[in-house]
Amino acid sequence: MQAVHVSKAGLRFISNYPKPEARPGEALIRLSLAGICSTDLEIVKGYAGFDGVIGHEFTGVVEECAQAEWLGQRVVGSINLSCRRCPLCLAGHAEHCPHRTVLGIINKDGAFADYLTLPVENLHLVPDGLADEIAVFTEPVAAALRIREQIVLNPTAAIAVVGPGRLGLLIGQVLSLGGSEVTMIGRRQSSLTLPEKLGLKVGLVDEIPDSTFDIVVEATGNDAGFAQSLRIVRPMGTLILKSTFAERANIDLTKLVVAEINVVGSRCGPFEPALRLLDKGRVVVRELVEAEYQLCDALTAFEHAAQPGTRKILLRP
Amino acid sequence: MQAVHVSKAGLRFISNYPKPEARPGEALIRLSLAGICSTDLEIVKGYAGFDGVIGHEFTGVVEECAQAEWLGQRVVGSINLSCRRCPLCLAGHAEHCPHRTVLGIINKDGAFADYLTLPVENLHLVPDGLADEIAVFTEPVAAALRIREQIVLNPTAAIAVVGPGRLGLLIGQVLSLGGSEVTMIGRRQSSLTLPEKLGLKVGLVDEIPDSTFDIVVEATGNDAGFAQSLRIVRPMGTLILKSTFAERANIDLTKLVVAEINVVGSRCGPFEPALRLLDKGRVVVRELVEAEYQLCDALTAFEHAAQPGTRKILLRP
Repeated sequence: MQAVHVSKAGLRFISNYPKPEARPGEALIRLSLAGICSTDLEIVKGYAGFDGVIGHEFTGVVEECAQAEWLGQRVVGSINLSCRRCPLCLAGHAEHCPHRTVLGIINKDGAFADYLTLPVENLHLVPDGLADEIAVFTEPVAAALRIREQIVLNPTAAIAVVGPGRLGLLIGQVLSLGGSEVTMIGRRQSSLTLPEKLGLKVGLVDEIPDSTFDIVVEATGNDAGFAQSLRIVRPMGTLILKSTFAERANIDLTKLVVAEINVVGSRCGPFEPALRLLDKGRVVVRELVEAEYQLCDALTAFEHAAQPGTRKILLRP
Repeated sequence: MQAVHVSKAGLRFISNYPKPEARPGEALIRLSLAGICSTDLEIVKGYAGFDGVIGHEFTGVVEECAQAEWLGQRVVGSINLSCRRCPLCLAGHAEHCPHRTVLGIINKDGAFADYLTLPVENLHLVPDGLADEIAVFTEPVAAALRIREQIVLNPTAAIAVVGPGRLGLLIGQVLSLGGSEVTMIGRRQSSLTLPEKLGLKVGLVDEIPDSTFDIVVEATGNDAGFAQSLRIVRPMGTLILKSTFAERANIDLTKLVVAEINVVGSRCGPFEPALRLLDKGRVVVRELVEAEYQLCDALTAFEHAAQPGTRKILLRP
């Protein structure tokens, strides 16, 4: 089958990669559509030292499964494969299982291929009528929703999202549900056109005074974005880190201590609420699609995705 | 009067520094005893760019005050002088007032002098019978208590304090009140003798497995201590930063995001509960005193305090 493979040797398209076999409890899924996210770009740069088929945002159709009710179903899938026996798994935190593998990220071939496998308990049915082009955003919308699981989102709080990119625009929309005013912060005016079109407030980072926001979400994944986020959060405010950083960051911890900032790392979130929001059209995603490529053109697609300001790049088998 | 002064030129003892005059609402306090803390050492290294009389841990006697009931009273004093008018002050967060001065730290001459001044509302009576040698620990015990204001301290949580120094030993004692088991973590066996004597559990940092503790308090103020603290906190655990860092830190933010760590900056705390704990003997401080110097020997005292492993150095006029 076709597959997009990453290793120390770099990113490669392989036309004859072995088709995976579903293990007991797993389903074999034929890919319908996949999305490239910033974590994929970090993995190509060496983050996590992954060697395998890359990709974790997808929608597909179950072709083989011991549980017959899944056959032929359109599905999306959560990405952490846990041991189900350790204290963290038993406490309901499977996504933090120390023995986990992660689809396309840690020791588990991912979604940028004609076929992938996942345990049945990771699968979620895509509602009838929800197009693949929308359902493929389930994973990043779930990641945005993770913030709602972690902190009290007081609707009167002044919220900023630094980085109006692929993930930032989903976070901004998700946090504005429920009545909060969310300001999308960018470095260039051109990056603010789309957030404004989506009905979000916008601001240029250099024009934002210090200590302006109660809650700031860092969605750039770089040192400068972190420094700006720390600058614009108010004393005793909350700074949410939503991006993975491939390199060590150089951080001014003193402001963090003196202003008593609360920093919250935030990763994977719940799929069912994400599917509900997408199904009801409460999160706009079509406008976030920049381009679509075939799997065989994945290297070009990755180059495109890595250009600054590029929004979602989709891959189709 | 005698004063210990810091500026770009470094630390100096001045024998004829002008005696301060109490402004309206302020009391003039004659110093009884003062303590050197790590923040003082950072200030001497250049943190906060302070120019003035250094020192903020003290106990003294009110000599002049418009409110006569304070005259002759033994007092300790909270260190933030706020505007009392801005939104943060009105919300009860005077210690985060953007217009504040801070005793011996920001634009306000401090306590390492024969006399200092403070607004009356910053003063707290030292209970009769509580010795100066104990009351002088009120400010750092209050800082330790700040953690109890910020997070739920579940008594079943596994807690570690990294850095069994001056502040770390107070934090360890304060957090163990109420039933929590607290482990003091050091780099060398010799640093663990005193915490063990104080009834705290101890551990060598190199022998602590990854992801061991629910709550980790960073009390070293250096990169290596931060890195170890991040290493030993469990996924979704809490990392409390209790030290000021003079220099930028080089941090692996990826673990923070992937393990969804909650980082909480923590600074000044409440004086009245600190005085209650000291008065009831619930926090042991006498064993933390390493040496006492006269003000005129402050430069030697600072050199002593800066030696690794040194506990509290006191200064007496």
